[in-house]
Amino acid sequence: MQAPDSQPFNQLPAHVWPRNAARTDDGVITIAGVALPEIAAQYGTPVMVVDEDDFRSRCRDMAEAFGSPRNVHYASKAFLTRHIARWVDEEGLALDVASENELRIALAADFPPERITVHGNNKSESFLRLCLESKVGHVVIDSRQELTELEALAEELGQVQDVFVRAKPGVDAHTHEFIATSHEDQKFGLSLASGTAYEAAVAAINSPHLELTGLHCHVGSQVFDAEGFKLAAERVLGLYAQIWKEQNVALKYLDLGGGYGIAYTDDEAPLDVAAVARDLLREVQDVADDLGIEAPTVVVEPGRAIAGPSTVTVYRVGVVKDVHTSYTATRRYIAVDGGMSDNIRPALYASLYDARVANRLTHGTPLQTRLVGSHCESGDILVEDGNWPDDIAADDLIALAATGAYCYSMSSNYNSFGRPAVVAVRDGEISPMIRRETVEDILAREY
Amino acid sequence: MQAPDSQPFNQLPAHVWPRNAARTDDGVITIAGVALPEIAAQYGTPVMVVDEDDFRSRCRDMAEAFGSPRNVHYASKAFLTRHIARWVDEEGLALDVASENELRIALAADFPPERITVHGNNKSESFLRLCLESKVGHVVIDSRQELTELEALAEELGQVQDVFVRAKPGVDAHTHEFIATSHEDQKFGLSLASGTAYEAAVAAINSPHLELTGLHCHVGSQVFDAEGFKLAAERVLGLYAQIWKEQNVALKYLDLGGGYGIAYTDDEAPLDVAAVARDLLREVQDVADDLGIEAPTVVVEPGRAIAGPSTVTVYRVGVVKDVHTSYTATRRYIAVDGGMSDNIRPALYASLYDARVANRLTHGTPLQTRLVGSHCESGDILVEDGNWPDDIAADDLIALAATGAYCYSMSSNYNSFGRPAVVAVRDGEISPMIRRETVEDILAREY
Repeated sequence: MQAPDSQPFNQLPAHVWPRNAARTDDGVITIAGVALPEIAAQYGTPVMVVDEDDFRSRCRDMAEAFGSPRNVHYASKAFLTRHIARWVDEEGLALDVASENELRIALAADFPPERITVHGNNKSESFLRLCLESKVGHVVIDSRQELTELEALAEELGQVQDVFVRAKPGVDAHTHEFIATSHEDQKFGLSLASGTAYEAAVAAINSPHLELTGLHCHVGSQVFDAEGFKLAAERVLGLYAQIWKEQNVALKYLDLGGGYGIAYTDDEAPLDVAAVARDLLREVQDVADDLGIEAPTVVVEPGRAIAGPSTVTVYRVGVVKDVHTSYTATRRYIAVDGGMSDNIRPALYASLYDARVANRLTHGTPLQTRLVGSHCESGDILVEDGNWPDDIAADDLIALAATGAYCYSMSSNYNSFGRPAVVAVRDGEISPMIRRETVEDILAREY
Repeated sequence: MQAPDSQPFNQLPAHVWPRNAARTDDGVITIAGVALPEIAAQYGTPVMVVDEDDFRSRCRDMAEAFGSPRNVHYASKAFLTRHIARWVDEEGLALDVASENELRIALAADFPPERITVHGNNKSESFLRLCLESKVGHVVIDSRQELTELEALAEELGQVQDVFVRAKPGVDAHTHEFIATSHEDQKFGLSLASGTAYEAAVAAINSPHLELTGLHCHVGSQVFDAEGFKLAAERVLGLYAQIWKEQNVALKYLDLGGGYGIAYTDDEAPLDVAAVARDLLREVQDVADDLGIEAPTVVVEPGRAIAGPSTVTVYRVGVVKDVHTSYTATRRYIAVDGGMSDNIRPALYASLYDARVANRLTHGTPLQTRLVGSHCESGDILVEDGNWPDDIAADDLIALAATGAYCYSMSSNYNSFGRPAVVAVRDGEISPMIRRETVEDILAREY
């Protein structure tokens, strides 16, 4: 995957780009053997290109690391289409959904409901009813109120629903403030410290319509070491021991959530999932041994770690403008035909991205550069600060790597932009996944 | 608009809520005589309710402040539907668009093209071509590259296009802070300081296919005093004087952009537009007199100041949960059936909102409360910190005020949520504007 040119900007960092990304001898970036300029010509820009084998191979890596595909629940909020649900199904993984519509999309893709786990801090009655009627594998109970409602609905329908209880382990893995979910002062879960998690677990155990099979916790997003997961596991396992001693119930599963960090830029290193899994599984075994309980099966919920690196977004360069930042210094602004409507993450989380010219090799002198979108907002920035060759020009194609997670899924129609087309590539073939959104689509819901 | 109850939480701050908002004697919030619970029952939740007369009255206020409806360009990026474009047209205002699709929507609403001004830092060839073919009033030129492209297209089509040149006045008047330092380092416009704005103006003057009729500048968003506008006007008028002296051309218009601040919470005061307009118009006249030039007509581009206060978003309460924030303190988390998909502003800009129970009076004891959405993300917060009565419960309706600008227009399908329904209310009547987005809509673009 080394570029056929010595200039660093022409290289594609292998730990950031899709596994089947390469540069051909004539300098064009290909994914799974398909040239990005060919996709841009056929589908227009911006276009999102998913390396299907990359996505599937990360499913398999996760499955291998955690002992079985069934122990890996793909978190569909990262990126969900019916195609993606089918890939996850074919790889044998389980699926997490966090809304009624995510569940409906999974069911529309014929995802086996027994392998679906249902999240959400505020599940509506119709959502809970759909969970029961479609016979999902697990509902992760997030509050006492939900437990009561689910129990009543299960009773009404004469069913017994397998559930996890979501616990707050009080662990705050180092990450961006907005996407840290494990400290106590947040909306998800029930407290280990104050005993509400235990009370809910006991209520589930005592209910004839609920079957408590495990506990869930989540330590954060973009986590880069095992310590947070291990500490959370240790704390939650204390509750397993309490439930075993006081209720004589051995819980089968320990769901440690997601948060496995990926590399967005050349100088970031992705979490070594296999190493973390080894560490984590050994730790869970050790703690269980110390507590004198049977070690539960560890279940994880990667979303970004599977979908993130699979996808690149290809934009076309429009206006190139040099701006004086002082009497002597300038910054080049390169504007492309998308922006914060298809990728809100730089504006929302100050996220960084790796961007490369996709249609040719560049040979220019490095220049302080900012990649911006076409929206009517000065914060519409895709790459805040690059040191890029000065020969990038209008009609060049720029590809951003690692846009598979939380880009399309959080995309908007800001400035009435239609959402991009999305295509999958595999073995030299293009399969369209989502067609470009048109102004007619946007107007279709207006009266 | 004072509530029939002494508890502050039952009141509706008149400077934040729509002009036709009220509480009835039985405690229900009405907009233009229509009860919000009635709308929620008929259209479901979340639902956005637009006070049409509020919107129109703010159009008229702006028109009066700036001398003529033609001097006020509604910035459609804030909130654009065909209905809204028609209201703006009927009030006689001009319209700003900043993308090809915004222009298409305006044209689909039969908005008179001669009253359309076109913005954008990266207008594509097809966008510029549509501008010319539809004969829009003004194109605001943002770069030399665009000027060259527009000129070539106008020549090809045998047209003469009226244009403004967008200048960077070097004034950054964001929020309450007035920083009269250089604000050159952003993507929009051409520099006054370095002379690129003048060069572009001269190039437009010398082009047989462009007619330079004014200059544009924009000082920021949510601006709360006149100083930033005045300083920007003063600086840009220096360029008018230079153009008059050196090119012997008197420019007709001075477009000072938008940014007129509104109140989102009880303790904020909206900008007094009439007073600012008086100040600004006098200042422009004075500076023009000093420079010995004819004062141009001041044109402004409010989006938020027209659309923002017109609209409320009505949510239904689901889970209510008390969370220990320390051994002695708790925070109540109230979850509603929307969140960052229909209002990204708290997560994106740390924006504050005024929220009230819409279906009844509350009588509880004030309690530290956080209003959260239903998304699978801990940053999914609508109101970070409230001191709200402790009797708010499941099935209550909560309305957020001032959600007319940058909420629907930036809404997403995160967690596969469908976008809310939007209805207009006027004189006791409901007119649906946008129907609720369904999972079928979301799946419709998938192959």
